[in-house]
Amino acid sequence: MDFLQRYQQYVSFTDEHLSTFIKRSIPKTLYEPANYILAAGGKRIRPVLVLCACEAVGGKKEDAVHAAAGLEILHNFTLVHDDIMDNAAARRGRPTVHTKWDENVAILAGDVLLGLAYRALLQSDTSHIQELSSIFTEGVIEVCEGQAYDKEFETRKRVTLDEYLLMIRKKTGTMVAVAMEIGAILGNGSPGTRAALKSYGELVGEAFQVQDDLLDVIADEKKFGKTIGGDIVEGKKTFLLITALHRAKGDDKRLLQKIVNEGGAAKSKVDRVRRIYQSTGAVEAAEIQIANDIAKAKEQLKILNDSESAHMLSWFADMLLSRKS
Amino acid sequence: MDFLQRYQQYVSFTDEHLSTFIKRSIPKTLYEPANYILAAGGKRIRPVLVLCACEAVGGKKEDAVHAAAGLEILHNFTLVHDDIMDNAAARRGRPTVHTKWDENVAILAGDVLLGLAYRALLQSDTSHIQELSSIFTEGVIEVCEGQAYDKEFETRKRVTLDEYLLMIRKKTGTMVAVAMEIGAILGNGSPGTRAALKSYGELVGEAFQVQDDLLDVIADEKKFGKTIGGDIVEGKKTFLLITALHRAKGDDKRLLQKIVNEGGAAKSKVDRVRRIYQSTGAVEAAEIQIANDIAKAKEQLKILNDSESAHMLSWFADMLLSRKS
Repeated sequence: MDFLQRYQQYVSFTDEHLSTFIKRSIPKTLYEPANYILAAGGKRIRPVLVLCACEAVGGKKEDAVHAAAGLEILHNFTLVHDDIMDNAAARRGRPTVHTKWDENVAILAGDVLLGLAYRALLQSDTSHIQELSSIFTEGVIEVCEGQAYDKEFETRKRVTLDEYLLMIRKKTGTMVAVAMEIGAILGNGSPGTRAALKSYGELVGEAFQVQDDLLDVIADEKKFGKTIGGDIVEGKKTFLLITALHRAKGDDKRLLQKIVNEGGAAKSKVDRVRRIYQSTGAVEAAEIQIANDIAKAKEQLKILNDSESAHMLSWFADMLLSRKS
Repeated sequence: MDFLQRYQQYVSFTDEHLSTFIKRSIPKTLYEPANYILAAGGKRIRPVLVLCACEAVGGKKEDAVHAAAGLEILHNFTLVHDDIMDNAAARRGRPTVHTKWDENVAILAGDVLLGLAYRALLQSDTSHIQELSSIFTEGVIEVCEGQAYDKEFETRKRVTLDEYLLMIRKKTGTMVAVAMEIGAILGNGSPGTRAALKSYGELVGEAFQVQDDLLDVIADEKKFGKTIGGDIVEGKKTFLLITALHRAKGDDKRLLQKIVNEGGAAKSKVDRVRRIYQSTGAVEAAEIQIANDIAKAKEQLKILNDSESAHMLSWFADMLLSRKS
């Protein structure tokens, strides 16, 4: 069986569990939007990693399915609230919750998703429930911190690469690490394995986010589904913009600084900015960052016994490196 | 020592713990508003009940202080998000979070408060942590359901008294019941005591909310701090409006129906509506509802051994009955 097929099986296993999870349908203004976002699909990376981590340390995926659902529901909570804050109109090809309903509905739907995420997690049958819940909770808090930094950076004139990396670690890396660690705990992994898999999650999460920045300027528009250069138009302080701004000189530097100062650029500037990202070596720096993260992530897997799930984690890291969307 | 003094001691005990709880100050846009709402005071009913319930079953209040803080932080999460949804400009005499900062900040501050509430709760040293967390989580979900009903009722033409009572039970009663039950668990109360104290919380919470409706039309404006008749002006479907609408006839009924249809009334109508609430017996019905709830709540306390804390719970119920603000 190839890994993509195996990945899909984990997704189906998660989705089956998720589809039976929310049984209530009233109050309608609460559960309709909650079900709407959960049913919209998505990559389901976090639950797949929970299941895979559990199996990779010798556990059974059935023991981790509640936590897997919890991680996915939690992720959806962040999407609903982030979309309000980012004024995002669409997600996964459908209107966002606050667009389809309104902001009040979206705030409350997000809130209940957070409650439902805990409900799912707490159904786990384990003696480690306090630790599991604490790890999950610290993840929730860090995600909020990451989102707060992200919003703060939008209006700040200067953001260093270290600050940027701290932000994406909190916003994305933490919950991927939490997924791995919780999976490892539910599979009764040793402390060493748990730490290694947690670290794998942090690295993979970071690489994923930098790759996202990169795809905005190098991806195939049709496959990626987003408009190329959207980050540039919005003046988003990405890995590329921060790095290029630091390295550029003369007119190039002035253009990038102007984008920062004005909080964005005209679409006509996108091509020139992309060339600056190339010429300053910002694109290469991002590629190196991702390659290093992925290499280090795969290092962590050496602690595991040989298994299909261990190989799948390795494949998953490589897949991130080569993803085009 | 009188009970009011004792109540204040529980509040101080909670506040001391709360003030050392949030140690981080950055990201600023996250922790400033979170600390702002937590430091704004309030009645601190939920943490006091946690501590009191714990002691009333023979426990030590020190064992319940983390959960007490958790309940109070959770309550503040609901305030921050509810204030956005209700467009409320002020709370506890200060600007609300979304007014002082903005909606995005308030959404995220609320989110992190929910995370912090779990962090506090999970610091409890108890073998019942899974049960405790589940009770807490079901409370979070019910509060969201209650708020969703509350918002749905705003635009609905017809709301029955049963629907209204279900809403306030979910929105207010549940978390007061959760406070009592969690306190009882942390004090190692018997299953019977736990059930009785939980029931006390439900009844007291319901009575509190109906009393709130009543105070809007009968309270002393200066003491209550709110404008009398605010609910009438806003067309809020309170216990009184729902009951009076059901019982009124002729012109009176038409006026109340008009308030429902138009979603509010001019300030000049307040006095007439208050007289209708009296003449239809709606005020008396509310008073009877509260008195019955309080009597039943006090019934529940009979299971307790004689103690200062048990007496205080009885005093607390009576105080709700006689509160003027």
